[in-house]
Amino acid sequence: MKTFKSKQGEELAANIAFQITEVARLYRTTFDREMQGLRLDRSHWWLISFLVYFEGSTQQELAEVMDIGKAGLGKLVDRLESEGLVKRFPDPADRRLNRVRLTSKAKPIAAQIRRTSETIVKGSISNLTSAELATLHALLDKIKRKLVAP
Amino acid sequence: MKTFKSKQGEELAANIAFQITEVARLYRTTFDREMQGLRLDRSHWWLISFLVYFEGSTQQELAEVMDIGKAGLGKLVDRLESEGLVKRFPDPADRRLNRVRLTSKAKPIAAQIRRTSETIVKGSISNLTSAELATLHALLDKIKRKLVAP
Repeated sequence: MKTFKSKQGEELAANIAFQITEVARLYRTTFDREMQGLRLDRSHWWLISFLVYFEGSTQQELAEVMDIGKAGLGKLVDRLESEGLVKRFPDPADRRLNRVRLTSKAKPIAAQIRRTSETIVKGSISNLTSAELATLHALLDKIKRKLVAP
Repeated sequence: MKTFKSKQGEELAANIAFQITEVARLYRTTFDREMQGLRLDRSHWWLISFLVYFEGSTQQELAEVMDIGKAGLGKLVDRLESEGLVKRFPDPADRRLNRVRLTSKAKPIAAQIRRTSETIVKGSISNLTSAELATLHALLDKIKRKLVAP
């Protein structure tokens, strides 16, 4: 996998937003490559991955965290529901809200996604000490909080 | 702007890939919001932003760093070229390669994108010391190198 070089490398080195976006992109392309064995479209394993961690989310929450429109998310849930991998269910407290869960048919795929994901992440941080990892978490969290509430 | 909560928050806290993806998404939505004044589609200002930093890149390089297909990138360059904002030019050493640059018409937009981008990034790191920022760069770079060459 290539990374991007530019003449203004030093200027870019100062651009933390670019660096974070680049690392996120590298994770995504690594996941894409490793998930190919599952014979699922990117959007399919992407939704299942989020449901592994956010099972029972509303469609609105999933659209937000996956950064796709509500209409696009709705279509994606339709497709996976027709394949029997996910199921909508009404929120017990507010029946206007649709929540989404994985079906038992999806569980083996979900387990494989989780294993693959853990292997990739473990490999990516294998040259960080646990103290460095904790520092990285804390620093990213500081940025996140500023972006959420500037 | 909301962030995503889950019942398995602690499990996720251990997932650095998720956190990096989340911060990248927050940067993207913040950029989207702040760029609205430019009245450009996301894909348009996104390409112009990359050309601000990677002027003269080949289409292949742009497709890679923007994480879109070569065909999609080609269409995007077509559209911006028809609006007079970018221009293709053949690589002097290998005329089969198309490189892309901003036109003079795009310069004011590029300058505004750069200013907006700097304001967002500066705000996002305003509660980090410069030592913390250097640490963050170094740790992300360690992860990046592992993802590029596992």
